[in-house]
Amino acid sequence: MNNQTQNKVIKDVMHVGEMASGAQLTVPVYKFTAQGATDAPSVYIQANMHGAEVQGNAVIYQLLELIGNIELFADVTLVPYANPVGCNHKNGEYTLGRFDPITGVNWNRMYHNNPKLVDVAVEQYIEESDREIEQAFKQSLLDDINEQLDHNIFGLTTGQRIAYQLQKLAHQADLVLDLHTGPISSKHLYCPEYAKESAKHFNIEHTLLIPNEFDGALDESTFCPWWSLSEAFKAKGRCINFNKESFTVELGSQEQIDLDIALTDAKSILCYLQYKGVVKPNGQQDFVPDEMIRYACYLKDYKAFYSPMGGMVDYLAEFGKPLKAGEPLARILRMDNYGDGDALHYISLDHEVLPILHFASASVNQGTELYKVFSEFFTL
Amino acid sequence: MNNQTQNKVIKDVMHVGEMASGAQLTVPVYKFTAQGATDAPSVYIQANMHGAEVQGNAVIYQLLELIGNIELFADVTLVPYANPVGCNHKNGEYTLGRFDPITGVNWNRMYHNNPKLVDVAVEQYIEESDREIEQAFKQSLLDDINEQLDHNIFGLTTGQRIAYQLQKLAHQADLVLDLHTGPISSKHLYCPEYAKESAKHFNIEHTLLIPNEFDGALDESTFCPWWSLSEAFKAKGRCINFNKESFTVELGSQEQIDLDIALTDAKSILCYLQYKGVVKPNGQQDFVPDEMIRYACYLKDYKAFYSPMGGMVDYLAEFGKPLKAGEPLARILRMDNYGDGDALHYISLDHEVLPILHFASASVNQGTELYKVFSEFFTL
Amino acid sequence: MNNQTQNKVIKDVMHVGEMASGAQLTVPVYKFTAQGATDAPSVYIQANMHGAEVQGNAVIYQLLELIGNIELFADVTLVPYANPVGCNHKNGEYTLGRFDPITGVNWNRMYHNNPKLVDVAVEQYIEESDREIEQAFKQSLLDDINEQLDHNIFGLTTGQRIAYQLQKLAHQADLVLDLHTGPISSKHLYCPEYAKESAKHFNIEHTLLIPNEFDGALDESTFCPWWSLSEAFKAKGRCINFNKESFTVELGSQEQIDLDIALTDAKSILCYLQYKGVVKPNGQQDFVPDEMIRYACYLKDYKAFYSPMGGMVDYLAEFGKPLKAGEPLARILRMDNYGDGDALHYISLDHEVLPILHFASASVNQGTELYKVFSEFFTL
Amino acid sequence: MNNQTQNKVIKDVMHVGEMASGAQLTVPVYKFTAQGATDAPSVYIQANMHGAEVQGNAVIYQLLELIGNIELFADVTLVPYANPVGCNHKNGEYTLGRFDPITGVNWNRMYHNNPKLVDVAVEQYIEESDREIEQAFKQSLLDDINEQLDHNIFGLTTGQRIAYQLQKLAHQADLVLDLHTGPISSKHLYCPEYAKESAKHFNIEHTLLIPNEFDGALDESTFCPWWSLSEAFKAKGRCINFNKESFTVELGSQEQIDLDIALTDAKSILCYLQYKGVVKPNGQQDFVPDEMIRYACYLKDYKAFYSPMGGMVDYLAEFGKPLKAGEPLARILRMDNYGDGDALHYISLDHEVLPILHFASASVNQGTELYKVFSEFFTL
Repeated sequence: MNNQTQNKVIKDVMHVGEMASGAQLTVPVYKFTAQGATDAPSVYIQANMHGAEVQGNAVIYQLLELIGNIELFADVTLVPYANPVGCNHKNGEYTLGRFDPITGVNWNRMYHNNPKLVDVAVEQYIEESDREIEQAFKQSLLDDINEQLDHNIFGLTTGQRIAYQLQKLAHQADLVLDLHTGPISSKHLYCPEYAKESAKHFNIEHTLLIPNEFDGALDESTFCPWWSLSEAFKAKGRCINFNKESFTVELGSQEQIDLDIALTDAKSILCYLQYKGVVKPNGQQDFVPDEMIRYACYLKDYKAFYSPMGGMVDYLAEFGKPLKAGEPLARILRMDNYGDGDALHYISLDHEVLPILHFASASVNQGTELYKVFSEFFTL
Repeated sequence: MNNQTQNKVIKDVMHVGEMASGAQLTVPVYKFTAQGATDAPSVYIQANMHGAEVQGNAVIYQLLELIGNIELFADVTLVPYANPVGCNHKNGEYTLGRFDPITGVNWNRMYHNNPKLVDVAVEQYIEESDREIEQAFKQSLLDDINEQLDHNIFGLTTGQRIAYQLQKLAHQADLVLDLHTGPISSKHLYCPEYAKESAKHFNIEHTLLIPNEFDGALDESTFCPWWSLSEAFKAKGRCINFNKESFTVELGSQEQIDLDIALTDAKSILCYLQYKGVVKPNGQQDFVPDEMIRYACYLKDYKAFYSPMGGMVDYLAEFGKPLKAGEPLARILRMDNYGDGDALHYISLDHEVLPILHFASASVNQGTELYKVFSEFFTL
Repeated sequence: MNNQTQNKVIKDVMHVGEMASGAQLTVPVYKFTAQGATDAPSVYIQANMHGAEVQGNAVIYQLLELIGNIELFADVTLVPYANPVGCNHKNGEYTLGRFDPITGVNWNRMYHNNPKLVDVAVEQYIEESDREIEQAFKQSLLDDINEQLDHNIFGLTTGQRIAYQLQKLAHQADLVLDLHTGPISSKHLYCPEYAKESAKHFNIEHTLLIPNEFDGALDESTFCPWWSLSEAFKAKGRCINFNKESFTVELGSQEQIDLDIALTDAKSILCYLQYKGVVKPNGQQDFVPDEMIRYACYLKDYKAFYSPMGGMVDYLAEFGKPLKAGEPLARILRMDNYGDGDALHYISLDHEVLPILHFASASVNQGTELYKVFSEFFTL
Repeated sequence: MNNQTQNKVIKDVMHVGEMASGAQLTVPVYKFTAQGATDAPSVYIQANMHGAEVQGNAVIYQLLELIGNIELFADVTLVPYANPVGCNHKNGEYTLGRFDPITGVNWNRMYHNNPKLVDVAVEQYIEESDREIEQAFKQSLLDDINEQLDHNIFGLTTGQRIAYQLQKLAHQADLVLDLHTGPISSKHLYCPEYAKESAKHFNIEHTLLIPNEFDGALDESTFCPWWSLSEAFKAKGRCINFNKESFTVELGSQEQIDLDIALTDAKSILCYLQYKGVVKPNGQQDFVPDEMIRYACYLKDYKAFYSPMGGMVDYLAEFGKPLKAGEPLARILRMDNYGDGDALHYISLDHEVLPILHFASASVNQGTELYKVFSEFFTL
């Protein structure tokens, strides 16, 4: 190890709310500072916005261990335990952390977007340099979030208060990674359509290409404004590449911590960061993505398949392997029908799909989301 | 009692889903048929879409008892226990029935709307009579729902399957009443802006006037298409009054059954139905709405006030009485601060409001919806 | 106000556990110290062991305000928010704080009892003075709790860790009050049979007389050892009155904070404390219990009545008023039976009872605890 | 396959309760009748008393398929979906079915035991034959359950009503198997100490030997009365072997259905039933238990290890393999401590244990049950 490239991490504790008892809700924030001024894009990585999706914390642990000893050309901020309510919300043995237990709103649908900022920016900064436009627009995003946080007489929901403070950190970076997991799931990546090339630099076999539509998630809240700004300038005849990218990285299944797999996934992220010029291994081998077939799918073709019946499920389809029309996704057991009906039902689709994830529990109601599949797909 | 006007109710049981064990989810459906053919608008009334909002069932009980003995000029369909999942979903002592416990989606945000049907209708039926347009469009709404229910290879969510089947019944009627309650709440009415006159015929002091925007609820799913159709014909220079009205009737607080109050509220509904020509008392006194000051508020001015802090809440503001700027909505106890901070906090707003409902529990996190208020209001 | 008698409260923060995120679970502890040495019994009061039972916090608030200005002859320790897990455990709108959400174990059934300590004490201290016996036994109770907390290689449950630390504080006092509430409930008092006289000094109309049987609750964990010790010495021919009393004070309904009612209940507690010589009003009127009929019932005659059917409940019986045989406790609505069965069922008992509390929700399954009643009762 | 030995199953539907909506709670009951009169012991097998423990249903499916085609010398009753409340109780994605969601009481702690029946039987039947004693005592167990179900003015809890009806079926059999699973778990068997020999006839590597103490579970409720009766007669100098055995069979992890593994486990149960003379393969190979090391442990030595800290858990110890003192059970990640504390903690014990199961979630509070282990063990 080369001492010159040992990076120091600074820890901060961000206060994001308080519970009924007055207990403070806090989030740890870790920051590495670049060695000297460079043009490399700065980075923001968070994990565990959904309570049960814990593996991202282990990936951040491994990133903290790794980044300490490599060359770093831009600031990197890492936030594990991003949602202190979801993280601690048990009901029964499992963590019930996909939505606010009081309101039912998905914790990852509460970020902020203000399309008016784009209109204002195009009008106001059309004469400025690319650099000035970028800085002014970034400032307007931050000012807007601060306005929401501090000047609202009717207040914010619990989830908005958490989300907006995270978003404030994210808006200060150029590259944003939000670490999630599926229920029981393959690894997959949500990637803006324009950043398709970058998807090849992660060790992730499945990529969802998402359009410029804000639906409340962190990735969208950070890339959509910039995409829209580019589009608005393009409409005025000016092309600017702001080099902003945001991804939701789905690390596999929820309710699992595996520090060894986390090391692999941390290295996958470093492949991408090396590609973007943020890091360089210190005397070790480069972080190079694995050779693999990378399947991609447009978000509109990413389909949830809802169970046509209630029952107990023996999940059969393997993730990440094309499943032919008529091949079973699952077989559903209905013991109440034994003897006077069909106790075993095989469930399949009428065209080839690529199964990506399935429901976390072995029993479903009619209408429970059984599988999510790429219903149309291609290789990157 | 006059035997000639005794109406018979027909009971049906609608199958709306099945649970993991195979248990069938069913909803009872009660139908009265009009005495002879008339022009009076037909009626659909449902209750208990949200599990804890049970009082509407008691109102339907009283309506069944009352309608049996009055003159009836149109078909009336009544559906208690509209949501058999929410109705039975306990967690702890209370009923956790505002959203699907698996997905967090609000049960009353899953109805269907297809704006394309309006475009098709205007194009196709511009030459037809009002009556023919109405019948054709009603049929297209029903066909569209059937299409969703039966011809979708990826299936429907549990909540959609329930909602769509209820919506099928609702689309067959001209007047739709969805009986809900608030958490701890005054009585109030969600009323389309164009139906403001009708609001004066309920015994309900507070009316929310809602615009022509579909947000997933039953009332919107049934009046928005017709409103849009009227607007579309108006744009073509043709004015048609389809006489379709839908309301969400908020009966007071959840987790309460009171059969005596239910009788009062059933009579309030009969006031409205008599006004619309659906019923006539049989030798008794007319159903006439009470004299009262009726406050109204546009939906955009109906504000949720989120708690600025966590704590234990002593709710102070009375419902339905204007609360002056600076007067306390609530005082919040924070025993963790006693001795070295403020243990008691008074919460107020900087302008006059009309409190309508407050949170159901005595403890809140920072950001929990504390009160909902008319922030601007006027009398009807 | 007389400055000489102004008591200062000391605040401490007790660490009782930690959550998955590492968030510390803490409990605020307030202590008043007696003015000079006296023989008056010391006092321990806690509140909110069950999450939804919040009103005790408001009573402690009022006690803190009142005790500051009266004469105090013994140490008083007050602990609001005793259970930081239960206090913050929401699921849906309500607080789900009666049992550990992971294990289902009632938070007030996890205190510690070690019957062997009595045998040891009788054997070891039979020759000692009453005072020495008391001190030695108190020390053995504390040592035993410390042993449980610190020297157990397999560890403690979350709830035991909280309960044992509270119990450590309680064992240091002579009089213990655990402030609870029922679901929807009248005020009532759990009182050891031997302390019946003291029950007359609270402003509480209903008293449950409980035997010397440990069932896991705080009151039992603190009085049972002393009662058993007295009995054991009595069996040896020696009568000792240790003057230890513990009560569970049920303040009414859960999910309610009312600071005005809390003031009344704080004064009721001061009546009892004045009767025991702990406090004296400072130039004000004495704290004197109200005249009232006080009904009592032995614990064995305190009956839960389980609903004979599922349905929606209109609770009819008033609390604290004898209900004659055959008079309805409640009427249960069953809309699924309307038309082809009985939609309304009146529920009654075959002998006179005194209703004390009922279930918190308006809907019940078959077998849900509908009411709790004194099935045999008498006046104190 | 030999048609002569094809057994027909009769299906029945048992009504065990009703929900708030009036929905009936039912349980399917399958019965095979013996081919001709024999002395072979009759059998009762149920599954899924805990909602998430679904694999037993798949085992019953395979047993139904297998038993249809073998020789059968005694009646066999099979009950899948034994608990229709737990089976359907979702909260979040998982099934929350270990305890009544309203009361927190474990569904498998609500069976009935009445020790007085033994005293009565010994007194009344001391002069009778073994056969007469057995029949009279069995009848007294059934009468007692019926008495509880039907003649209790204060009623039964929801869980008791379900449990008692299942117990009524179980009391009619000689051999009782209750199919459960752990959270994430190895296969293991709860076996009465006296039936140790039988444990060798299941393909299960770990056996818990349990004493004659009733703690509310089905196995105990069915073998304890007979064990006590034997003991009571032995005290009178008379030895009777009633040949009653009850087991709780832990099939592995919850929230999993695997029909292939279920077939293996069904055959394991048939090994035991062949050993007891209940079945004989029809022209196929015998059901013979596998050779394996079978570890056993007394219930008093079956220890829960509670997490000494909150955090995210990487479970390390393998099930069913002795873990040496000091070897890690798990490592616990605490990202809030990174940089200014220890982020990674290895958890071990000071003596050798045999890990059997661990918690289902990857995050724990301080005091959550992390592992259950045989702390002392031996081979059978």
